[in-house]
Amino acid sequence: MRRTSFAEMQCPVARTLEHAGEWWSLLILRDAFHGLRRFDEFERSLGISPNSLTRRLAALVDAGLLRRSSYQDGPARFEYVLTDSGRDFLPVLLTLRNWGMAHDRPERPNFAVVDARTGEPVDAVLVDRGTGRELTSEDVAFVPTQDLSRTGDARI
Amino acid sequence: MRRTSFAEMQCPVARTLEHAGEWWSLLILRDAFHGLRRFDEFERSLGISPNSLTRRLAALVDAGLLRRSSYQDGPARFEYVLTDSGRDFLPVLLTLRNWGMAHDRPERPNFAVVDARTGEPVDAVLVDRGTGRELTSEDVAFVPTQDLSRTGDARI
Repeated sequence: MRRTSFAEMQCPVARTLEHAGEWWSLLILRDAFHGLRRFDEFERSLGISPNSLTRRLAALVDAGLLRRSSYQDGPARFEYVLTDSGRDFLPVLLTLRNWGMAHDRPERPNFAVVDARTGEPVDAVLVDRGTGRELTSEDVAFVPTQDLSRTGDARI
Repeated sequence: MRRTSFAEMQCPVARTLEHAGEWWSLLILRDAFHGLRRFDEFERSLGISPNSLTRRLAALVDAGLLRRSSYQDGPARFEYVLTDSGRDFLPVLLTLRNWGMAHDRPERPNFAVVDARTGEPVDAVLVDRGTGRELTSEDVAFVPTQDLSRTGDARI
């Protein structure tokens, strides 16, 4: 059952969800960040049927988040590699992870997030680039852009 | 069709997705951050059937992300308000939004994100709390915790 398309909405959140396709696709991206590349690696990690996985990988390739790369000829074999826009999903995965660690922490979290250079644990926090202040729901307001334009405010 | 449960996985990303339920639920949370509270407000914003909306609101209440609050007796009327753990979804929505603004920017983004006190636009960026450095996919590595424990490293 195909859900309604979010693509025509004027909301960048909805449009992003359209690209990511569905929950399983986010877990495929997560696995790609964990270093998985090959079909059977994703299959083993996710425990989904080959048909489902084929369809989801194809959708992520279509959306430009993964690219297919040949690693063997005769028979041809492909691996799936994050594109730049796929790699830009990292903050989404890290904020989902933070929520889970705060509100439904697994007994044995399967992966730790560390600094790639030092190996030190990373504590990802969302801040405002300008002020450096942490962004919580108290600090942020969503303003309809039509209200901004009505007052001649050009900020978007 | 109910998808496989992610709840038993030892991955905080998968478990978070289990709580959020499905894409539409994230858009309901987004609308709640935009200030919507009442059934007909969500219905108008999302354009989904009353049955679907009822089911999704109930799932978000069950997951503890929204709470139902009575605002009128006889006939009883309820509104839906973000809980603390619902409000903690803000960073997920802002990072989804950032991806959309970078990779599939709407012609007329419907909402701007501003500082609640100053009204200045907010530029949300994910940094490491310790170093203050922006976290991109080059800066971060995911390490299986079994490898950490094998080397006696207690960091998770």
